[in-house]
Amino acid sequence: MSGVLRYKITIEYNGTNYIGWQFQHNGKSIQEAIIISILKLTNNTINKNELNLIGAGRTDAGVHALGQVAHFNLNTEWDCSKLLNGINHYLKHNFDDIIVIKCEKVDSTFHARFSAKSRSYIYCIINRKIMSVLAKNLAWHVCEDLNVEKMNEAAQIFIGKHDFNSFRSAHCTAKSSIRSIDEIEVSIKNNIFMNFMMPFVTMYVRAPSFLHNQIRVMMGCLCDVGLGKLNIDDLYNILEVCDRKKASATAPAHGLYFLNVTY
Amino acid sequence: MSGVLRYKITIEYNGTNYIGWQFQHNGKSIQEAIIISILKLTNNTINKNELNLIGAGRTDAGVHALGQVAHFNLNTEWDCSKLLNGINHYLKHNFDDIIVIKCEKVDSTFHARFSAKSRSYIYCIINRKIMSVLAKNLAWHVCEDLNVEKMNEAAQIFIGKHDFNSFRSAHCTAKSSIRSIDEIEVSIKNNIFMNFMMPFVTMYVRAPSFLHNQIRVMMGCLCDVGLGKLNIDDLYNILEVCDRKKASATAPAHGLYFLNVTY
Repeated sequence: MSGVLRYKITIEYNGTNYIGWQFQHNGKSIQEAIIISILKLTNNTINKNELNLIGAGRTDAGVHALGQVAHFNLNTEWDCSKLLNGINHYLKHNFDDIIVIKCEKVDSTFHARFSAKSRSYIYCIINRKIMSVLAKNLAWHVCEDLNVEKMNEAAQIFIGKHDFNSFRSAHCTAKSSIRSIDEIEVSIKNNIFMNFMMPFVTMYVRAPSFLHNQIRVMMGCLCDVGLGKLNIDDLYNILEVCDRKKASATAPAHGLYFLNVTY
Repeated sequence: MSGVLRYKITIEYNGTNYIGWQFQHNGKSIQEAIIISILKLTNNTINKNELNLIGAGRTDAGVHALGQVAHFNLNTEWDCSKLLNGINHYLKHNFDDIIVIKCEKVDSTFHARFSAKSRSYIYCIINRKIMSVLAKNLAWHVCEDLNVEKMNEAAQIFIGKHDFNSFRSAHCTAKSSIRSIDEIEVSIKNNIFMNFMMPFVTMYVRAPSFLHNQIRVMMGCLCDVGLGKLNIDDLYNILEVCDRKKASATAPAHGLYFLNVTY
């Protein structure tokens, strides 16, 4: 295809009913939903391979996104706002838990995944005795009181470059388990409404990239710190030992949100 | 029934799939869902009339609650935490968008509706160009920029005792349309996560009681103030003229949350 026209989209989704971002044969993925919608919009004048939709990060089944980023190619020029509205038209009809919130024309050298400088995620816990039905599938319910100050203090040991082998899925295929965390903060928000007057404990984390399940395993460990089951030395030892079996259980997918990508 | 044992429950619900709080023959109500669950729990040793479940306020179809309050009677004494867990067990199986978050034994003179001193509600608007799929059914989407400062300034004219005839449903059956607003605030929250990094414009309002649709008509008018379609004088005139036809369209139900009740 000569003269590639490349577009960058920012996507919000509720991951509850999807097998994750990435195309798989055993269920519906966010990636496929968007591909289907773009192909319909362009009346199949381009095929899936030429389109080549690539996301900044692969979110797992149940993980949500506030600002996933992807790029794709078209063979005709589109007005960005028409493109956005058009994709959303087809998403709304078939995949109404996915929406494109921004669409930009980019240089053909732009790559959603490889051009990314950093990615940030939010993990959200509802920390009260009784579950919330309004936040169902939107936050992890932890019923025992969390010591948020201790969690945040412990989280700071992740800052910088470390071998995160203890903090990745057994299925993680990355060759190196060395990663750098730029920023991490665990805090409590008690605002009304979308926080439903409930104590939401949130973890914000930013890094150039993450290993498979890294954030969820980190969150599982930090939760155990908050519950008093682990202290900071324990967490430090888990990091040092580079053994997944020493870390806590992986926190559930539905508390995790892909927040944004910087380029 | 001699020696009435009365219990007060605080309830959270997502009103999307219900015809509202109040029992009706044409669909499932929150009230009925809770009655069914309590009757199952108590093995039908009490009937629906003896139980006499009464809520503090009647929310419309699609309206949510963070802290609806209700009372009911039992003929045997229950441990409050067992009662709460038991009701939630049956709710979870059949009505998993309703949950009891608090259960207390109260004096038999306590009445969820008549003992209430004030009720507070939150109305939530997502104010950005593109709709949000994560907040679907949980906030009203207004795509044009709202002037929140003006909305809050205008809202203050509602404070105190007024005839709210312009601000109630044509179906409102209250004899008097005089009501008092104790507190009202329109503000913008830009927090992350449950506010999804989006500008949420929220109205908090507290009053001893409200007319049918009063908050939603007030919100509809304040939205028009925020959009520059009405100014404060216009709003004042709408209040003065006591004519529903002069007010703006009723804001949709799914942005409204019954927040709490004080006794």
